[in-house]
Amino acid sequence: MGTTMGIKIGILGATGYTGSELLRLVVNHGGVQISWLTTEKFAGQKIAEVFPQLSGFLDVECVSVRNIGFLEEVDLVFSCLPHGSSKYFVNKMLDNGARVIDFSSDYRFSKDAVYGLPEINKENVVDAKLVANPGCYATTVILGLAPLASEGLLASDLIVADIKAGISGGGRAPNLAHHFSEANQDINIGSVSAHEQKTEMEYKLSKLSGSKLRLSFIPHTAPIDRGILATIYCRFNKKISIERAHKIYEKFYNQKKFIRVFENGEFPSTKNVRYSNICDIGVGFQDDIFVVVVAIDNLGKGASGQAVQNMNLMLDFPEDQGLTAAAIYP
Amino acid sequence: MGTTMGIKIGILGATGYTGSELLRLVVNHGGVQISWLTTEKFAGQKIAEVFPQLSGFLDVECVSVRNIGFLEEVDLVFSCLPHGSSKYFVNKMLDNGARVIDFSSDYRFSKDAVYGLPEINKENVVDAKLVANPGCYATTVILGLAPLASEGLLASDLIVADIKAGISGGGRAPNLAHHFSEANQDINIGSVSAHEQKTEMEYKLSKLSGSKLRLSFIPHTAPIDRGILATIYCRFNKKISIERAHKIYEKFYNQKKFIRVFENGEFPSTKNVRYSNICDIGVGFQDDIFVVVVAIDNLGKGASGQAVQNMNLMLDFPEDQGLTAAAIYP
Amino acid sequence: MGTTMGIKIGILGATGYTGSELLRLVVNHGGVQISWLTTEKFAGQKIAEVFPQLSGFLDVECVSVRNIGFLEEVDLVFSCLPHGSSKYFVNKMLDNGARVIDFSSDYRFSKDAVYGLPEINKENVVDAKLVANPGCYATTVILGLAPLASEGLLASDLIVADIKAGISGGGRAPNLAHHFSEANQDINIGSVSAHEQKTEMEYKLSKLSGSKLRLSFIPHTAPIDRGILATIYCRFNKKISIERAHKIYEKFYNQKKFIRVFENGEFPSTKNVRYSNICDIGVGFQDDIFVVVVAIDNLGKGASGQAVQNMNLMLDFPEDQGLTAAAIYP
Amino acid sequence: MGTTMGIKIGILGATGYTGSELLRLVVNHGGVQISWLTTEKFAGQKIAEVFPQLSGFLDVECVSVRNIGFLEEVDLVFSCLPHGSSKYFVNKMLDNGARVIDFSSDYRFSKDAVYGLPEINKENVVDAKLVANPGCYATTVILGLAPLASEGLLASDLIVADIKAGISGGGRAPNLAHHFSEANQDINIGSVSAHEQKTEMEYKLSKLSGSKLRLSFIPHTAPIDRGILATIYCRFNKKISIERAHKIYEKFYNQKKFIRVFENGEFPSTKNVRYSNICDIGVGFQDDIFVVVVAIDNLGKGASGQAVQNMNLMLDFPEDQGLTAAAIYP
Repeated sequence: MGTTMGIKIGILGATGYTGSELLRLVVNHGGVQISWLTTEKFAGQKIAEVFPQLSGFLDVECVSVRNIGFLEEVDLVFSCLPHGSSKYFVNKMLDNGARVIDFSSDYRFSKDAVYGLPEINKENVVDAKLVANPGCYATTVILGLAPLASEGLLASDLIVADIKAGISGGGRAPNLAHHFSEANQDINIGSVSAHEQKTEMEYKLSKLSGSKLRLSFIPHTAPIDRGILATIYCRFNKKISIERAHKIYEKFYNQKKFIRVFENGEFPSTKNVRYSNICDIGVGFQDDIFVVVVAIDNLGKGASGQAVQNMNLMLDFPEDQGLTAAAIYP
Repeated sequence: MGTTMGIKIGILGATGYTGSELLRLVVNHGGVQISWLTTEKFAGQKIAEVFPQLSGFLDVECVSVRNIGFLEEVDLVFSCLPHGSSKYFVNKMLDNGARVIDFSSDYRFSKDAVYGLPEINKENVVDAKLVANPGCYATTVILGLAPLASEGLLASDLIVADIKAGISGGGRAPNLAHHFSEANQDINIGSVSAHEQKTEMEYKLSKLSGSKLRLSFIPHTAPIDRGILATIYCRFNKKISIERAHKIYEKFYNQKKFIRVFENGEFPSTKNVRYSNICDIGVGFQDDIFVVVVAIDNLGKGASGQAVQNMNLMLDFPEDQGLTAAAIYP
Repeated sequence: MGTTMGIKIGILGATGYTGSELLRLVVNHGGVQISWLTTEKFAGQKIAEVFPQLSGFLDVECVSVRNIGFLEEVDLVFSCLPHGSSKYFVNKMLDNGARVIDFSSDYRFSKDAVYGLPEINKENVVDAKLVANPGCYATTVILGLAPLASEGLLASDLIVADIKAGISGGGRAPNLAHHFSEANQDINIGSVSAHEQKTEMEYKLSKLSGSKLRLSFIPHTAPIDRGILATIYCRFNKKISIERAHKIYEKFYNQKKFIRVFENGEFPSTKNVRYSNICDIGVGFQDDIFVVVVAIDNLGKGASGQAVQNMNLMLDFPEDQGLTAAAIYP
Repeated sequence: MGTTMGIKIGILGATGYTGSELLRLVVNHGGVQISWLTTEKFAGQKIAEVFPQLSGFLDVECVSVRNIGFLEEVDLVFSCLPHGSSKYFVNKMLDNGARVIDFSSDYRFSKDAVYGLPEINKENVVDAKLVANPGCYATTVILGLAPLASEGLLASDLIVADIKAGISGGGRAPNLAHHFSEANQDINIGSVSAHEQKTEMEYKLSKLSGSKLRLSFIPHTAPIDRGILATIYCRFNKKISIERAHKIYEKFYNQKKFIRVFENGEFPSTKNVRYSNICDIGVGFQDDIFVVVVAIDNLGKGASGQAVQNMNLMLDFPEDQGLTAAAIYP
């Protein structure tokens, strides 16, 4: 098992919301130490000036990524940089000998990286040099459908994944759509066009299924801080009872610490997983449509929690170290 | 056109949320006068003690429905009583010679009543003695699909109506699920079982279509005060371009004052219709799935606004009298 | 009384929150017509593209204030431009022969303008060429203390005005503090230093009192869209019973349409005045401290509602034309 | 130091909000074990049925307090029972040899109990048999004024404590005032009459001061889940510079783990302490009025967090065991 001394980590792009959640989790982890963190907007400031809630918990000065050549060598780097700009810095870190967990979509389809969804890919994560941390929507839908895809049960003519998500998924940079007086009291839909994570879902689920799967996927936004609720409508290619369907889920997620499969008639809500790494799943029929309901925290299991879970596997910590907290309530 | 003097209305069950919204609209209407209103919980109190925001606007004492025999004769009665208990009192009112608009589901499938969705049924509402005011979810989905159903374009193998709704739809009686500290920050799903308004949607859409239509429908709750956003996924039974689809909607809702069909690529959000009687509709394709997005205010076009619209038609007021306000913002 | 034909208005800086509320009120007013409106950010766009909720209600193209020389002559101009930049354009409008209502603080201490708080200054507003619309905090505190100041009852050693306000008061320009994920779930205090409207309160209350009054005033922010609740703690310079205090308020605000003085033991809340032009006031003692609680809508009586009230007085409309709506609920 | 084996606790009244927060903290504590918990409403149910977020974290069946005679002997009991009914059961527990931490106000003025505010009373808590856990408002105001009271600096003619608090402080029992559609978007004041915790503040601060102190105190409610922000206005009885005032606070709270005294010009907000046991304090002058701003989480340092801190002291755990988490964000 890892020990505190010696295990050093760095964070690229630490002052967005995935960064702040990562900091909160790492501070509580007890097994690793933050050597440095980068941010362009707040370079030169103490991290507790950027995030006052960390005052007394973390005393590190933010540096610009332009100083990357002078940064201390670390064992593992989290890159929370945005899509597109992450790749360049990830490669630099790999060249320096660090292992990397990348939050962007830059490596999710790449053979050079392991897709970091431990519930379906744990053994590969353990030895990975580079882990591509899944998208938050993709995590939700893949975890919801993986048991059915693996059993080859999904009829291909109908899979609709309707997602409702909180505002923090839109990032920390101020913009009109996420201004309080605009976003509060509003439920909206960005667009009905295909979202980039649709491909991610289809790609991974097709692999699990062994045959090409296509789905419809639309994310909506509602005024909560954290959380994703996915309602997935699908059909089976043969008759399956609700009891049998339940068993398939329970078996698939047996011994998976962060997945809770609900009892018949019970369904998840975002509130039960907030600020945790847990993924709740409930299933049921409406007529002949099978409905899978999945809830995660977009910054927890949907991003930074999952990244810490990946780190634990890579560095030989218990899989749930630093991730054992129940959801906050009320 | 109606004149103020002489047109008297009564309200059964006035102290829930449909009642309070009805009072707000009627106070602003200018053409009718509230003779009495009933409530069991607050009987004997002034209405402004129950709803302080009406202080200075309406000075009526609440009475129990048990005093129904002693109430002044009125021209029209709104019944906001719950399903089941409404029927008895509606009949009593009809016997007294009043015309009635009933908010409950008691008469929505009855030949004795006219279904009060003016955009598809205006001419029948005008002369109706009894109007069954539609359910809020049914209003949303029927308005979203009526143009396609009327043209017989819907493929019957896939219609999914995923609804996100605000908390006020759950009523004013305190309960744990709608306690602030429980409902705030939560997105949840009640159940995946068939909701009673599913039958209402299927029944009315099948009538419009001329053939039996079935759909999947699940309502979700998100922490906004007012509003319903429906995302409806369907398939056509023949190839239709987006331009053609748009034209079908524009033609169907031509000259309908409360329906706004959005331009290509634009989609509704609950914020643009709050506290109004407007229904916004946007459409688009994701691959071969046609997506219809509909937004209304659950207490506006979904209940009390629609009831006032029905009253206007019944009493020969302009259809939009008392309903001309734009949505509030921000 | 004014008639629709001929009464034309222009709006400078129409696309902030005071502007959008003003548009909503003017659209419903029925007595005036918007000739033009300016905005720098959205010049060239239709106003309904900026504010989709106005689609179907107002069809005007936004122009830049740089085109001010080419604008149609109007009877009255509302300037929603920010402090500092308003003065220049207000003067230009006055030179053109328009009467002006200025939302900024630029003229609130000027002899060239009438302070537009009709409850204490109505007769001067009627004939004013230029009205300085009061600040939202100042409106709240002055209305709360005016009856006591006028009677010379305030002991000068203790006046504390603690204000809690919604987010829309911070304007529409996106910034980190008002980003949804930052502002939601937070109650905060900007600073304890003297706010600029403190001087406005002291200046007007001293005038009413006939002697110099000083007070402590701190605004706080809580996550509601609209509303200000002021809790004002003060002492009398002689013994006054609660009944006597009540009478002083009722007499002072007798026949004032927008002021509701609450009965003994009842206190205002922001919810009862939302989206209205109403100001609710409740008073009581805690030991020997007299507590005045005042609620208004910051964009209603605190800004655009009050501006329309001033316009009504200036143009000889009924004082409450376009302002007769009760607060929205729930 | 305490060890897990053998240290058993019981909880009376575990299914309100102080109970649920206590459970969350105790589950994460690692040093104690829950033997039993009582609840009247949910007796017979598993605790994870009452609080689904605890599913997989705690597997205990709820019992009625009427079974108190059959409960296992424990080392320490938390009583979250309401004022009035707590006393009887607390005495029973003491008779059984358990030490007790009582959340109610029943013992806050009693010589038989130690007042459990460790920052001013740590040494007495350590050996206490019965600890009276302070009120949430009292905690906020006492921590805000203790440094000044201890130095005898407070002028007695003016102390106003204006408090803004979240909804969870109102408890978990459904009622109209805390119904989502009522409480959301509202800032309100219950009453201006003296609140029961006013006496608690005056009593403890007078003891610290050595002279009788009186203050005005009014709590307000705003729509956040958790948190209290107190703005305290006071005057000194001699001239003190801001630098001197700062030093007094820093010295008083030196080495106090849960108190963060902010730098000059910086002020607390509820967001920085949510779901933590931290108390943030900022101070400054407005003219000659000294303003103290204090933020805590009402269920954290205001109730259950403080109770765990007291337990740690009583059972010889590190004072912050189970309480080391930073505030959640965003």
